[in-house]
Amino acid sequence: MRAAVAGAKGHTMTALTDAAPDLVEVRRAVDSVLVEFLAAKSRSAPPQLPELLETLRRFLFAGGKRIRPLMCVCGWYAADGHGDPEPVLRAAASLELFHTCALIHDDVMDDSDTRRGHRSVHASLADRHRSRNGPGDADRFGTNAAILLGDLALTWSDELLHTAGLTTAQLRAALAVVDAMRSEIMFGQYLDLLGTGRPHDSIARALTVSRFKTAKYTVERPLHLGGALAGCSAAVRDACTAYALPIGEAFQLRDDLLGGFGDPAATGKPSTDDFRHGKCTVLMALAVVRATPAQLRLLHALVGRPDLTEEQADAVRAVLEATGARLAVERMIARRHRRAMKALDRAPFPEAAIETLRQLAHAASVRTS
Amino acid sequence: MRAAVAGAKGHTMTALTDAAPDLVEVRRAVDSVLVEFLAAKSRSAPPQLPELLETLRRFLFAGGKRIRPLMCVCGWYAADGHGDPEPVLRAAASLELFHTCALIHDDVMDDSDTRRGHRSVHASLADRHRSRNGPGDADRFGTNAAILLGDLALTWSDELLHTAGLTTAQLRAALAVVDAMRSEIMFGQYLDLLGTGRPHDSIARALTVSRFKTAKYTVERPLHLGGALAGCSAAVRDACTAYALPIGEAFQLRDDLLGGFGDPAATGKPSTDDFRHGKCTVLMALAVVRATPAQLRLLHALVGRPDLTEEQADAVRAVLEATGARLAVERMIARRHRRAMKALDRAPFPEAAIETLRQLAHAASVRTS
Repeated sequence: MRAAVAGAKGHTMTALTDAAPDLVEVRRAVDSVLVEFLAAKSRSAPPQLPELLETLRRFLFAGGKRIRPLMCVCGWYAADGHGDPEPVLRAAASLELFHTCALIHDDVMDDSDTRRGHRSVHASLADRHRSRNGPGDADRFGTNAAILLGDLALTWSDELLHTAGLTTAQLRAALAVVDAMRSEIMFGQYLDLLGTGRPHDSIARALTVSRFKTAKYTVERPLHLGGALAGCSAAVRDACTAYALPIGEAFQLRDDLLGGFGDPAATGKPSTDDFRHGKCTVLMALAVVRATPAQLRLLHALVGRPDLTEEQADAVRAVLEATGARLAVERMIARRHRRAMKALDRAPFPEAAIETLRQLAHAASVRTS
Repeated sequence: MRAAVAGAKGHTMTALTDAAPDLVEVRRAVDSVLVEFLAAKSRSAPPQLPELLETLRRFLFAGGKRIRPLMCVCGWYAADGHGDPEPVLRAAASLELFHTCALIHDDVMDDSDTRRGHRSVHASLADRHRSRNGPGDADRFGTNAAILLGDLALTWSDELLHTAGLTTAQLRAALAVVDAMRSEIMFGQYLDLLGTGRPHDSIARALTVSRFKTAKYTVERPLHLGGALAGCSAAVRDACTAYALPIGEAFQLRDDLLGGFGDPAATGKPSTDDFRHGKCTVLMALAVVRATPAQLRLLHALVGRPDLTEEQADAVRAVLEATGARLAVERMIARRHRRAMKALDRAPFPEAAIETLRQLAHAASVRTS
């Protein structure tokens, strides 16, 4: 039986005494927190700000799986959280605002004009500047405004967390988790940057990047945050980690496959970008390790070329297939999925939370977007 | 009489029962907090991070007036703060880490290769990448790594504040002030960006930018933070504002003059940058308002030109002089300084705090760097 509980501000969330949380409903509740937060910001912002706010709002609601907020709410349920769900939803939503900062800055760094099937934030701000005939170089304006908008999203993520209505114990625990999470994602991004530009053969290094950049950031820390809000035990926290790291790695490995072989209509990103930027994924490192001399020459000649053509991208894909790298990554995903399922079998979580984490693990491993 | 008080970790700070705080000593104590914080980060960071940490450390200690931490400590004294100064010093130091993020991102946005007389962060990271023959475009690497390092500095600013040893009441009050401060600086930066690129005649708009970007960010909110840590009354808070806004505007107006007429050896920045970027300062808006048609044509032709020569910069300077804009700004600074002094005369602060705020106001208004 599924019982609906209304949060303090009327957000509805399924109570988890004896049923799995309704993820669609949680997602809707998180989005409604974000809508309200941004609406309040619109009312208090100086007159020239609506353009920036509107850009942020459109970006946030153009798509996004809300995986981090969902994981946060699951962490709360996993730790048998009780009471008013509203502060938990607000804390969960704050993760999405932080993620917005990461995505906006990421697109600036990659110079990607497309995200979620739309113009990326810096490209869209440049378009606006151009269309109103603003002074100076429009692309430069777009980039600069996007750096600021990312910083603002980060700042607002803080504010949403701080004003979430948490108790003192919850607030202190939440801040510690969020601080760790943020350092980790920055480390991961930097390690990724260091290895980007040309293919390398270090599978271990690519896995380290994926652990910091994705497994900890996207799954482990959001679960920990939810757990911390419920005052969880060390055993629950460790069980979250045991599930999170393999499934987070599987999530990133799937991302790498989608980056090279995905349907741009589904992913919202061109499928040549990773090759153009010379992203050193596990997929690419595996291909380098297994390549014949001729295949290796091809990878070194093409991966990291900003002017890579579709035909050249197809040649890279052919090497990823022929070396068996693509298949090996599929196997790594399956292995990690199994490991996460085993961790769930042993986890001291309520049955309903386990069921939801199973669903999420499946979605993370087999998704197409 | 000046009494020295040792903070929890051995930082020494002058007690303010009957003497003005020793600003040199406060500055040293703040720097020692930063040194310790970064050393702890070095010990816990993954192996590839030292380069990033070293860059951050060199940037932080290459200079900087530490005006925001000093204002924060003054706010605490103004509100008659008592007890262990260590948490106050740590909170004050966290403002400097946030400021480091703002400066790093600022230099990326302005594409400025020089800061504090040294290579700016993105330029220095690009140099390193080039010298180790790293993959891809070195300038792009430098820019991207600097965006990340700025984000990391912001994150660590949070962490330093959260782990400052504040009581719950202090922490909640501090978070509210810091959240407001951060939104304000982002607003100010964005308004600044909107007006940058060609000269305009709106003195009011330039003053709004300086209020958000500097007066509130550099003086008002740091004072409020210190005040909040001492649990200050609304009267003390308002008195901080009455002092802060005029002196903060004076600080920015002096900055504008130094940007156009300062000695690069003292400011650490080329004195043509503001003209090249087309920064719309009060100084420039005044010149536009007062210019003859010929002078106006000259400003429109030269201000905002990325390839501006030294001779052309001299021609712009001549217009700023001839229109009386430079002198008018000097008068505005003097007027704001007087207004701040009057506010201090009425302020319900201990005499010693008033004396120190007088010194700081003088330094902000007449400085040469």
